[in-house]
Amino acid sequence: MVIALKAGISQSQAERFIGFLEKYGVTVHVSQGAAHVVLGLVGDTTGIDEESLRAHHLVDKVIRVQEPYKMANRAFHPHDTIIDILGPDQAVRHIGDGYLTVMAGPCSVETQEQIGAIATLVKKAGAGFLRGGAYKPRSSPYSFQGLGPEGLRLLLEAKKQSRIPIITELMDIQDLRFFEDVDIVQIGARNMQNFSLLKELGRCRKPVLLKRGLANTITELLMASEYIMTGGNEQVILCERGIRSFDTYTRNILDLSAIPAIKRQSHLPVIVDPSHATGLSWMVPAMTKAAIAAGADGIIVEVHNDPEHALCDGDQSITPAVFEQLMQTIRRYAEIENKCF
Amino acid sequence: MVIALKAGISQSQAERFIGFLEKYGVTVHVSQGAAHVVLGLVGDTTGIDEESLRAHHLVDKVIRVQEPYKMANRAFHPHDTIIDILGPDQAVRHIGDGYLTVMAGPCSVETQEQIGAIATLVKKAGAGFLRGGAYKPRSSPYSFQGLGPEGLRLLLEAKKQSRIPIITELMDIQDLRFFEDVDIVQIGARNMQNFSLLKELGRCRKPVLLKRGLANTITELLMASEYIMTGGNEQVILCERGIRSFDTYTRNILDLSAIPAIKRQSHLPVIVDPSHATGLSWMVPAMTKAAIAAGADGIIVEVHNDPEHALCDGDQSITPAVFEQLMQTIRRYAEIENKCF
Amino acid sequence: MVIALKAGISQSQAERFIGFLEKYGVTVHVSQGAAHVVLGLVGDTTGIDEESLRAHHLVDKVIRVQEPYKMANRAFHPHDTIIDILGPDQAVRHIGDGYLTVMAGPCSVETQEQIGAIATLVKKAGAGFLRGGAYKPRSSPYSFQGLGPEGLRLLLEAKKQSRIPIITELMDIQDLRFFEDVDIVQIGARNMQNFSLLKELGRCRKPVLLKRGLANTITELLMASEYIMTGGNEQVILCERGIRSFDTYTRNILDLSAIPAIKRQSHLPVIVDPSHATGLSWMVPAMTKAAIAAGADGIIVEVHNDPEHALCDGDQSITPAVFEQLMQTIRRYAEIENKCF
Amino acid sequence: MVIALKAGISQSQAERFIGFLEKYGVTVHVSQGAAHVVLGLVGDTTGIDEESLRAHHLVDKVIRVQEPYKMANRAFHPHDTIIDILGPDQAVRHIGDGYLTVMAGPCSVETQEQIGAIATLVKKAGAGFLRGGAYKPRSSPYSFQGLGPEGLRLLLEAKKQSRIPIITELMDIQDLRFFEDVDIVQIGARNMQNFSLLKELGRCRKPVLLKRGLANTITELLMASEYIMTGGNEQVILCERGIRSFDTYTRNILDLSAIPAIKRQSHLPVIVDPSHATGLSWMVPAMTKAAIAAGADGIIVEVHNDPEHALCDGDQSITPAVFEQLMQTIRRYAEIENKCF
Repeated sequence: MVIALKAGISQSQAERFIGFLEKYGVTVHVSQGAAHVVLGLVGDTTGIDEESLRAHHLVDKVIRVQEPYKMANRAFHPHDTIIDILGPDQAVRHIGDGYLTVMAGPCSVETQEQIGAIATLVKKAGAGFLRGGAYKPRSSPYSFQGLGPEGLRLLLEAKKQSRIPIITELMDIQDLRFFEDVDIVQIGARNMQNFSLLKELGRCRKPVLLKRGLANTITELLMASEYIMTGGNEQVILCERGIRSFDTYTRNILDLSAIPAIKRQSHLPVIVDPSHATGLSWMVPAMTKAAIAAGADGIIVEVHNDPEHALCDGDQSITPAVFEQLMQTIRRYAEIENKCF
Repeated sequence: MVIALKAGISQSQAERFIGFLEKYGVTVHVSQGAAHVVLGLVGDTTGIDEESLRAHHLVDKVIRVQEPYKMANRAFHPHDTIIDILGPDQAVRHIGDGYLTVMAGPCSVETQEQIGAIATLVKKAGAGFLRGGAYKPRSSPYSFQGLGPEGLRLLLEAKKQSRIPIITELMDIQDLRFFEDVDIVQIGARNMQNFSLLKELGRCRKPVLLKRGLANTITELLMASEYIMTGGNEQVILCERGIRSFDTYTRNILDLSAIPAIKRQSHLPVIVDPSHATGLSWMVPAMTKAAIAAGADGIIVEVHNDPEHALCDGDQSITPAVFEQLMQTIRRYAEIENKCF
Repeated sequence: MVIALKAGISQSQAERFIGFLEKYGVTVHVSQGAAHVVLGLVGDTTGIDEESLRAHHLVDKVIRVQEPYKMANRAFHPHDTIIDILGPDQAVRHIGDGYLTVMAGPCSVETQEQIGAIATLVKKAGAGFLRGGAYKPRSSPYSFQGLGPEGLRLLLEAKKQSRIPIITELMDIQDLRFFEDVDIVQIGARNMQNFSLLKELGRCRKPVLLKRGLANTITELLMASEYIMTGGNEQVILCERGIRSFDTYTRNILDLSAIPAIKRQSHLPVIVDPSHATGLSWMVPAMTKAAIAAGADGIIVEVHNDPEHALCDGDQSITPAVFEQLMQTIRRYAEIENKCF
Repeated sequence: MVIALKAGISQSQAERFIGFLEKYGVTVHVSQGAAHVVLGLVGDTTGIDEESLRAHHLVDKVIRVQEPYKMANRAFHPHDTIIDILGPDQAVRHIGDGYLTVMAGPCSVETQEQIGAIATLVKKAGAGFLRGGAYKPRSSPYSFQGLGPEGLRLLLEAKKQSRIPIITELMDIQDLRFFEDVDIVQIGARNMQNFSLLKELGRCRKPVLLKRGLANTITELLMASEYIMTGGNEQVILCERGIRSFDTYTRNILDLSAIPAIKRQSHLPVIVDPSHATGLSWMVPAMTKAAIAAGADGIIVEVHNDPEHALCDGDQSITPAVFEQLMQTIRRYAEIENKCF
């Protein structure tokens, strides 16, 4: 941490401030400039509150040098985290660097026929996981909210029938008790900073897929994963799903630089959601290829056998036929990128 | 709602699609252009899912003409909502158009002395409400998280001693049972789209202060309030607290155009938080004046008697002395804007 | 300037790098941490290129402590710049801190009658300057581009008739020769970083109104003014006109925190354009009041006697009647803010 | 174009307004709703000014259905534009769909040795074009501004020696006379809406590389190309180089969805600049692969033989060694994407 003091400070003022800083257990190095004094803090600065330092009447600027996250930090954990999940078909899926994972399914679980049919199709096409929402985060209270516990029941039924592991979103911690047979719990973008929910999932022993928020930085995403990991659950998979921007052509802007950025800063797996990122089904194939080429560990994509009648996200869902084609492309790119598929 | 169909569609295709739309209970008007057919839907289109329409293979564009919110909509409720709250001092505070409300206090409740002292000071200076956090949303799990139930207890003690009503943030619905004597429940920016929490507060009978999310549109803010109102709780106060942007000079960008925008679209009261918006205590007075001039129904501001040692948000908290000065400015501007204070 | 080196660097590597830095004429202070070495550079670092430093294989982070602008910097020029302009009516207008300037007129000059009528109206209502575009920056080549030299001629005719000084936009340096009798030359938002144009206006002796770009930071705005000032022209007036953001309710987001920010960092006058910022004529009064309350030195507003038939920006232009009302509000707020009007 | 009128309008008011619209040469279809009247305009609406319509006291909303660009529009020109450039080595380079073009070189031309060495290296590695700046757009007037005409001279010398065509940025139309032997003229991001410059290049017969602005939409980019094309120059190559956003990890956010978006809307070639987009040399390989996978027609990348001493953009320039490796990756991906290289 580096602190630049305001201009025109007296020697004794500076000394008293340095004494105050040393109480945090750090060593302070002093750089005396023409106008500014710059202090370099040496030691563990994680617990030092930048905001109160900035409020200090002697302080002009405070800059962190070390990242604020530790458990998610590659500097402390250089080996890539691989998350292993045994499916109902007794096959183990590995999620992380060196592997390519595909999670596919409808935006929401609508009927037994629908989820059953899609499960069969995506399993056959080679997807590793079936996704489907029972609890839907909708901007409008008038939109379909999901079937709730009944939706979970149908999803679990499809899991059993098609023998494919499932990932589904949890919106309210009070519903976690229904998630026993869910293989991966998803935290939606709008809940990335629902700190209560993150802490609870830290106590949980299931893998968590943590989606990046609409306008959250990479650092905030890693700090959100830090909340889960400090709780005791280190099985966190990150997901880039587009960030909010000024152009309305696409629903969000898919930030593929997040992939190399996360892989540099962290050891956690990171996948991409091209469906929510673009909001346009026709863009999904191109962005899927780009995501894999950028180094993503996987893709989570919306597939619906009848998008025109989908109860949500119809415009961004691809059909099973398109999905099969996409899987061939994915296999090809996985090979190019030396990822086990 | 207006739907532009793709070019080159046959008469029978268009007719079948129109038949499908009419099942929603709307009348469809047809505009036949050189290349495009444009359909105007007449009737209640609230329940029509734009996304599945956009997915339709015949559809090129879908544009909503009516706003998606109803209960929050001034078109349906032309009279301004005024929320009345009786304080422990037996004085009624009115929040809404024609009044100016000031809520002030520290970012978080730290000790009995701290919250007690600040409560006394802000009450004396003329604030209507005391704010203070017991549950703090922190980007980092290593930062002070708030005193929790103990913090609430201290806050309630200060309420009693200083005889000033309180507003405090609820992060987890499981803590609502501790909020019986809280006068206004605050939903933080990061929870603006925590739909589970919004639905629960819809069942609650307490006034709710709903903060606009970091990157949420005015419409999304009004839809979030719609979630609460459709639940049965119509006592919603909106709060503009800055939106995320590209310049890092200020913490966020205070979007004061949100005030006239909200007042045009909705009947709900709207206040401004200049502390979180700017993140700079020295900017708070200027932005407070600007907010009142823009038409805000109130201000919620962070005040700390010792910002340099504040456990959070020290850099944006103003001192009691500065707050007293600010109150004089506020009184003056309230008078200019014909608001009762 | 502070440079954090990468972890694991040898003593001799660090020493050689320090030697390299000292060649820039700075002194280097060393902070040896557990993992990182942090260097504090003391001296004039303006000429040091951060980008090549960041490219250095030993460097992890580079942070500037001093602002990169000097001539625009209040630290070097603590007194507010006041720009005096003598009008054709022999009255001197002062632009800067302590004064409130109003510039008003149509988006573009259309006909002699139009500009003449509006000039008379705004002069009578009390505006200090008449604005009107002869060269229009239009997103589309099919939109009205302005009358060019003829437009300037009509504008100058109106100046003479109504005896009001004028401000108009210059888009191409080759047209500067027509600007002899123009009182203030305006550089539009889209040309804020047209460095060639800025350098040329640095050679010019006329006051320049420099509009902030659609997505430019405060620092970039001040560096753009630095281009003009280093050229020899210190008469720069800055203008906040809204920045690009994700919500489409308003055309841009009016960033009023730019006012106190600029006044803290710089000595240059700063005015606000509520017309282009909001794109909504009905919002102009509220945002004008807010701008003055925030400390702006003036307002530039679009006024058209027949907005429905305006050749551009009709939706954001206010009528002369509304302008007269606005002028009364402006006078009132100027008084409150202790500004000479 | 669709116009939604305000609620509560009388029959005669609507009729008069429709008559006014018909003067534009369009047919007007009327949709009478419960509260709103919606008008569908049929015919060429390109010349209709949305802004003055929105200003109309009867109008609530105006929505364009047709895109505002024509010459750049694939709907009117379905065949991909391929731009052919004959190099000094008598080999023809094709830029456009089906081909992959690589443009590489330093940010700026510094010395004969530097540009000569890099030219040799990139030519040998297989680049189609040499880039290098003689006129540099720098945020700061204190930064190296480029060698100007001397820089062009050195660049042309390198073109001759290495027999490789060149692309270089033009910032001021007055310098166009020095560009006779330049093969592609580049318009920088900050000049994307320098309409005067665009019009001039419309009169020019050289291919133009048009970079997307920091915060410009896809539509604005295509309208900027429309300016050039309506001037008579149809040889426009578009370039996605990152857009401004809230995270500071990368310099900009590389918006790869722009590639499929542009290819859907337009027939013009589009390339990607991963250097300026990320600002981080280590990210360039991953983003280059992703760009090609997304469908880009080419890459323009910064290569410097000594980035640590580069006079600009050192932190994002890759070394010749890294470039050679990158070329192998590019060849591989070009093959996968069926692009001639």
